[in-house]
Amino acid sequence: MFRCPACRATLPWGATDHQCPVCTGPLDFGLAGVAFPRAAISTRTGGMWRYTEALPVFSRPVTLGEAFTPLVPCTLGGREVLLKWEPALPTGSYKDRGSAVLVSYLASLGVVEAVEDSSGNAGASLAAYAARAGIRLKVFCPASASPGKLLQIRLYGAELVQVEGPRPLATAALRGYLGESGVVYASHLWHPLFIEGVKTMAFEIAEQLGWRAPAAVVMPVGAGSILLGLHQGFAELLAAGVIDRLPALVAVQAASVSPLFAAFARGDTEVSPAAAPRPTLAEGIALPAPVRGRALLAALHASGGSAIAVSEEEIAAGVRHFGRAGFAVEPTSAVVWAGVEHLLAGGAVRGPGPVVAVISGHGLKAVPAIAQLLN
Amino acid sequence: MFRCPACRATLPWGATDHQCPVCTGPLDFGLAGVAFPRAAISTRTGGMWRYTEALPVFSRPVTLGEAFTPLVPCTLGGREVLLKWEPALPTGSYKDRGSAVLVSYLASLGVVEAVEDSSGNAGASLAAYAARAGIRLKVFCPASASPGKLLQIRLYGAELVQVEGPRPLATAALRGYLGESGVVYASHLWHPLFIEGVKTMAFEIAEQLGWRAPAAVVMPVGAGSILLGLHQGFAELLAAGVIDRLPALVAVQAASVSPLFAAFARGDTEVSPAAAPRPTLAEGIALPAPVRGRALLAALHASGGSAIAVSEEEIAAGVRHFGRAGFAVEPTSAVVWAGVEHLLAGGAVRGPGPVVAVISGHGLKAVPAIAQLLN
Repeated sequence: MFRCPACRATLPWGATDHQCPVCTGPLDFGLAGVAFPRAAISTRTGGMWRYTEALPVFSRPVTLGEAFTPLVPCTLGGREVLLKWEPALPTGSYKDRGSAVLVSYLASLGVVEAVEDSSGNAGASLAAYAARAGIRLKVFCPASASPGKLLQIRLYGAELVQVEGPRPLATAALRGYLGESGVVYASHLWHPLFIEGVKTMAFEIAEQLGWRAPAAVVMPVGAGSILLGLHQGFAELLAAGVIDRLPALVAVQAASVSPLFAAFARGDTEVSPAAAPRPTLAEGIALPAPVRGRALLAALHASGGSAIAVSEEEIAAGVRHFGRAGFAVEPTSAVVWAGVEHLLAGGAVRGPGPVVAVISGHGLKAVPAIAQLLN
Repeated sequence: MFRCPACRATLPWGATDHQCPVCTGPLDFGLAGVAFPRAAISTRTGGMWRYTEALPVFSRPVTLGEAFTPLVPCTLGGREVLLKWEPALPTGSYKDRGSAVLVSYLASLGVVEAVEDSSGNAGASLAAYAARAGIRLKVFCPASASPGKLLQIRLYGAELVQVEGPRPLATAALRGYLGESGVVYASHLWHPLFIEGVKTMAFEIAEQLGWRAPAAVVMPVGAGSILLGLHQGFAELLAAGVIDRLPALVAVQAASVSPLFAAFARGDTEVSPAAAPRPTLAEGIALPAPVRGRALLAALHASGGSAIAVSEEEIAAGVRHFGRAGFAVEPTSAVVWAGVEHLLAGGAVRGPGPVVAVISGHGLKAVPAIAQLLN
């Protein structure tokens, strides 16, 4: 069932609204009776679908073969940190978790046409799953998105609409089309079933640690679907008695576009749009006004986490450092390098267990941008 | 122990020769007492290292977190075929299996410097593992290799030497440097421990099929390390009594550079260099003279397999078809699309079990080339 956290309106399973029809806010989704039968899970094929008792049931599940993504030791900030290597997913980005669940839902409802707006990775991911499901997809992207991401969208057969100017103009263009066409808005920013898919990242991390929570998880945050997905996933593990505390969830933003960092520092309960967003190497999180700001702040506070902002120089250094360590990461993911350094320097990691850093997308997604950083 | 199949010379564990010091031919490697304790294997972390009883033991194993790569259903040639999705590996290519084992060997011996020549993917993969191991690597590549692959090599901190002209000129340049420097030649073409790593692809496929052999495996072949690795892996499974027959191994080449196809069609026992190689979209297999031609032909014959050549038009169509199905594959991997069609049209698949097609590398490795195919 879908539920509006602001006005308490509910929508039944089968609704295709991307926002609350009463108050226009973002909707939540919650499953009752989530369970983690560990012995049974351990015998199943790896990957996000092994947690079947904690996921919705679909008449037409859509999968491209999501790998159980590795947790790989890497030295960051003078300490061994575990990288959650999401580039192993089919389109090279964590977004595939959300797309798999959202597109499974739409395909099961018989939806044949949808639209989406994206800085690139989510559009590429949704395009792949829409192709797999036979759903026609139109994606509105900033023309400045990575060539690799734009190519993926076209290769998967989606219709690509390139919009000149900063990221919000792509959303504005989509809104105009949405009003005219009335097709389903398969939004990774708005649709709660996207977060429902991303939560499986928390399940995998816990299982990889012997069904224990890490001390902290550090991640890039723009719209915050990793943050919200991890919070939901770890909260479900906690409620089911599998883990005994939440890990500290640590959001890293580019200082150039850091509305969540600013709101957290000010102690606000809502995220105001970034005052003066500047261009950033971390194009995947260059979102000045996240849709679910209140929920992002709540996730940071509930988990004992924090928000960190890193400079463009630190992002560039992160790409190079990860590369020299054997990992090709896209600049958006490279924010976690300095993020972990700041976190550890601040002495803010409490509790037992390792620190996990989420690598959200493969470096091959951003070849021209990375090439510039090496010259 | 290393052994020369031509002159029977042997070399002990610890040797760093890439070829037989007596007759200069390629060396083989064989482990005694390979075993597959299935119950124990099933409890281990996914990926190639779970088959520890069938792999050499290293004092310094080098890993970047190799995912258990998915086996994903996809309709090819009117039939459901299973794609072995190797892009889920760390550098986006199956080469990581070979690099992980070869670099583990070199690191365990204390090697600190090595050289390699490559059309791109193997160089990128070796560079990543060398970075992880702290080994200095120099890679000779055709200047025409994919920008993504060349970038990866530099990003991982290897020294990139770009050589103008066709692929064999990169090898010639390396040979000159090798003679002067005397450093270790970490060759994916020559070193048998590279094949030792690739054989784990066969183990994974068998385990994913419930410890059974598929009817056939279709794969792109240039130097043929997939073919030789799969043959070695399935032969070890057969010898251990895990499977009861070898799958037919089917090599697909670009007609533009198809020396194995020509030799197989002629019934030869050795592969002559391609008579008139032409440029091909399948740059990863554009090798006119494979090092291990005799072994490649033997693997095809021993398994009841065959060789197929596909046109440039078919390769381009393969890229587009896979894309529309939700899979971004590099042009080199796209040869299997038409390869499977030819195989099925010829009615040549005997025996029970599915047909598996190996996707060797991610489409993100070849963004400019794929962009041209979409325009």
